Amino acid sequence: MTDKKAVVLLSGGLDSATTLAVARSEGFACCALTFRYGQRHTCEVESAGRIAESLGAAQHRVIAIDLAAFGGSALTDKAIDVPKGKADLDDSSRIPSTYVPARNTIFLSYALAWAEVLGSFDIFIGVNSTDYSGYPDCRKEFIAAFEKTANLATAAAVEGKGRFRIHTPIINLTKAQIILTGTELGVDYSLTHSCYDPDEQGRSCGRCDSCRLRLKGFAAAGLKDPVRYTKDDESK
Amino acid sequence: MTDKKAVVLLSGGLDSATTLAVARSEGFACCALTFRYGQRHTCEVESAGRIAESLGAAQHRVIAIDLAAFGGSALTDKAIDVPKGKADLDDSSRIPSTYVPARNTIFLSYALAWAEVLGSFDIFIGVNSTDYSGYPDCRKEFIAAFEKTANLATAAAVEGKGRFRIHTPIINLTKAQIILTGTELGVDYSLTHSCYDPDEQGRSCGRCDSCRLRLKGFAAAGLKDPVRYTKDDESK
Repeated sequence: MTDKKAVVLLSGGLDSATTLAVARSEGFACCALTFRYGQRHTCEVESAGRIAESLGAAQHRVIAIDLAAFGGSALTDKAIDVPKGKADLDDSSRIPSTYVPARNTIFLSYALAWAEVLGSFDIFIGVNSTDYSGYPDCRKEFIAAFEKTANLATAAAVEGKGRFRIHTPIINLTKAQIILTGTELGVDYSLTHSCYDPDEQGRSCGRCDSCRLRLKGFAAAGLKDPVRYTKDDESK
Repeated sequence: MTDKKAVVLLSGGLDSATTLAVARSEGFACCALTFRYGQRHTCEVESAGRIAESLGAAQHRVIAIDLAAFGGSALTDKAIDVPKGKADLDDSSRIPSTYVPARNTIFLSYALAWAEVLGSFDIFIGVNSTDYSGYPDCRKEFIAAFEKTANLATAAAVEGKGRFRIHTPIINLTKAQIILTGTELGVDYSLTHSCYDPDEQGRSCGRCDSCRLRLKGFAAAGLKDPVRYTKDDESK
């Protein structure tokens, strides 16, 4: 363990929890950053706090940002329905309605600001190839372009104090590989939350894109997903 | 006048007011975007509203963002003094303490999000060569890198609906040229606010970097700055 700091974007989902565990395993003192961004539910933010504690983050900060002010996404705009069933997920030529305009650009910009203040040059983000079910800001080309921008944007980089690196440790992993990686590093996946549309008790719907990707991942990894699903309780 | 929309970053200062006037003169329906970001004073935000109205913006939105949460700048952190006198301004090798980490990256990211929702591909930002008294995120290289990132980050660009362009109409102008351009386009500079450290009545200090650049610009343009300065009233 070094005292080298990294800023880790932590949504409270499975991917970012695994990313935090990887950053810790690489010896970084992790400064976890979570956004409240007009989500319809706050389960994710609560999960993020539990995960940060459980994985020994050095700091955890929650920043409120008003993406809902612009609308345009099923995740922030009450006028757009969260898709259920296969249509959105299986048409890889389409960008899903759960896409939030410029979300990762905004998240990485804040991470960059905090990193600069902390004197850190390492930012971790849990984008991955499975997440790229049409999200343009989860691709390697985007991350590389942002990294270049970061190194031109900041006093720290321009003064030659270091070079920012955007780490994407799970970008090439399947959901199953992510789950196996995290399990090996001690991630407690019962603390994570993935569902776009949980019920009032915080139980996952099992039907939205995010639940379906997650369940498929656990099945492929040969493990049982420890979070509660509405349908589990209904089938009892 | 077309109905082609542009998002225009509007701080309430002289540069962004001029930029809005240029965007309007190019026929854009201007959607002005202002941030409250933990400034010590709100004069700028009030000025932005008056300027947006005066220059016929189609929309004006003010978004609160919490840059003060990270600290690290004299403009957002109460523990750091706003510099007065010549030291900061004249040493071009130093980045001033009024630099806000990753500010323009964050501002442009929000502008990008709003542009995508509006179906706009044009973003205007009033960075200029005079402003580059050490601010890395006011340089052409930074703007070019952000533009590239924008075109990889967004569904609108990836789906081929258009190509985002970051317009920097005043980037090559001196302060005097900016003032002359705006004057020709009907900008009422009495509505703008530049001072980093105004008094309780909103009068400018005349001594901070921003006041000094502004006063020098008006003098070089052969015009009188219409805003009120503390020292004007003191000298009466």
